[in-house]
Amino acid sequence: MQDNSQPRTELEKLGEFGLINYITKNIVHKQKSTLKGVGDDAAVLDFYSDKKCVVTTDMLVEGVHFDLAYMPLKHLGYKAVMVNISDLAAMNAQARQITVSLAISNRFSLEAIDELYQGIYLACEKCQVDLVGGDTTSAVSGLVISVTAIGEGTEQELVYRNQAKENDLIVVSGDLGAAYIGLQLLEREKQVFLSSNKQVQPDLAGYDYILERQLKPEARTDIKELLRELEIKPHAMIDISDGLSSELLHICTASDTGCHLYEEKIPIDPTTYNTAREFNLDPTVCALSGGEDYELLFTIDLNDYDKIKGNPNFTVIGHITDKSQGCQLITSSGSMYPLSAQGWNALLQKEEK
Amino acid sequence: MQDNSQPRTELEKLGEFGLINYITKNIVHKQKSTLKGVGDDAAVLDFYSDKKCVVTTDMLVEGVHFDLAYMPLKHLGYKAVMVNISDLAAMNAQARQITVSLAISNRFSLEAIDELYQGIYLACEKCQVDLVGGDTTSAVSGLVISVTAIGEGTEQELVYRNQAKENDLIVVSGDLGAAYIGLQLLEREKQVFLSSNKQVQPDLAGYDYILERQLKPEARTDIKELLRELEIKPHAMIDISDGLSSELLHICTASDTGCHLYEEKIPIDPTTYNTAREFNLDPTVCALSGGEDYELLFTIDLNDYDKIKGNPNFTVIGHITDKSQGCQLITSSGSMYPLSAQGWNALLQKEEK
Repeated sequence: MQDNSQPRTELEKLGEFGLINYITKNIVHKQKSTLKGVGDDAAVLDFYSDKKCVVTTDMLVEGVHFDLAYMPLKHLGYKAVMVNISDLAAMNAQARQITVSLAISNRFSLEAIDELYQGIYLACEKCQVDLVGGDTTSAVSGLVISVTAIGEGTEQELVYRNQAKENDLIVVSGDLGAAYIGLQLLEREKQVFLSSNKQVQPDLAGYDYILERQLKPEARTDIKELLRELEIKPHAMIDISDGLSSELLHICTASDTGCHLYEEKIPIDPTTYNTAREFNLDPTVCALSGGEDYELLFTIDLNDYDKIKGNPNFTVIGHITDKSQGCQLITSSGSMYPLSAQGWNALLQKEEK
Repeated sequence: MQDNSQPRTELEKLGEFGLINYITKNIVHKQKSTLKGVGDDAAVLDFYSDKKCVVTTDMLVEGVHFDLAYMPLKHLGYKAVMVNISDLAAMNAQARQITVSLAISNRFSLEAIDELYQGIYLACEKCQVDLVGGDTTSAVSGLVISVTAIGEGTEQELVYRNQAKENDLIVVSGDLGAAYIGLQLLEREKQVFLSSNKQVQPDLAGYDYILERQLKPEARTDIKELLRELEIKPHAMIDISDGLSSELLHICTASDTGCHLYEEKIPIDPTTYNTAREFNLDPTVCALSGGEDYELLFTIDLNDYDKIKGNPNFTVIGHITDKSQGCQLITSSGSMYPLSAQGWNALLQKEEK
């Protein structure tokens, strides 16, 4: 799936500083808080005095987090930024700046790096964040991209994982499982492509939604404003990078609570549902364990139910219980199974029934 | 040089979250500005309202920046933190927090990661910074460590690269070239070890200083206070990670000036000098191009000369000139050669004379 007809400029032609200049020459800062960006030993940022500085970092490794056989470099750059901004959104913070560090082997040309940075800058543009620094280094093999995102929020705005209360409603934005099913589809088409001696081009028509969820995830930076308008402040919040089960368990562990999660309430898009069935996968398992949906999972006071009821952006999927009740998945048939980090166990038990 | 008699616990036994818990279980925050560290989607920091937030990031890649044949993991962890804190020192900022991201192959055991983190925490202790977040992920091969350091400083304190003025004195802390010569020594002993079928243990007695400069570099966090006591505010400052030539050219380019650098003034430790000679290397070239000394290079007002004269921590090595004069190295014999980023050219020319 690689096009070898493109021009190829070796990175060594530019050297480290030439490459940095090339990558950063068009940067225009959008944030007032960016006093000094790329070009010194460090960036200098200025936050309003009532704002706290919120920092997160995530690393994507070739062969572990992405496969360039089906992940275009532009999408990889975009995703590397978005997954970090998603972490800030999960704090109810506003993303302001990022730094990007790259380790790249000489397998990659300047044109490849250009494509990667197109995606990085597109995500910056989309979320109005400034690229203020980073490091660019060679690697013996492969590609590693490490992003640190910096945001701000007032003490009142910020939401942690550990403040879920008994009887809180558990709410999720958007729908789940699509990114995982998108990945299964890409893996299948890659195998078809490889086993056909690269004669058969992938047929991905009709799967746009799930592919986009995998290849171009969007951080839910809109949720902060949506909740503010609804006059809801979540008690606890986390983003869904590892799957619903794992994230809900994080909230319950940190908050010292249990939970009841209702299988039939979990929002799953029809394309996700049908494609999961094509793969003989349980759509609920995909939602529970798939991960990479980058939706937000949060708990709200029971009294806020009327504010959120019927809102198309949110689905109430369960409630927080006393710790002694454990973390339970209640299946469509009404059976109760302990939720596990992988999510698989509960469903395997269900299937064995 | 590896000891295979040590116990070995596979990382997969713990899983990602088990590993994170294991690594972070003993963290005690020292900074008032650390409101929330490891354990949520992001860390939350709080800086005094008159302080700016200063951010820098550096990535170390196995096979590019370090060779585990002679770089103990503890030293690697220490160095990965120190090189970032050095960047903050070069801004005249105070380091406060770090995040650490790791990509590690299954070649590394839990014991190996433990050793790495011992070094990380030792550096944190030394510089009184808090580890507040990070990411731990598997890699197909090798080890990549990416650190982001966050510090603070008032507008008045911070020093940039681009404010050097004509007639400024060029000053350097400590001495130069030792880290590079230390690396040459380690490379030589590695070759001896390998070619002797691992029978000959390295003989490194008497080389402590240059080995320590390579294996355990110290960020010059003391310079900020030293300069404050002397009532000197540098005009421009940078840390020496890539070699004196390259860093001085960065200052001159950013400040739109030229410079005169005097070869005979460059501070070189006797062990560095003698070992360079052993290797048939020009000690000046090692200082100009070696890098990794992590000393600070800065320019001060000519009128501040009396404040710094004779101070054992600092050496005046030249002065800033008008841009039209270019960046010149004046050799011990009085000849003038244009300084190049590699530093080598000027000296090669000198040797060809």
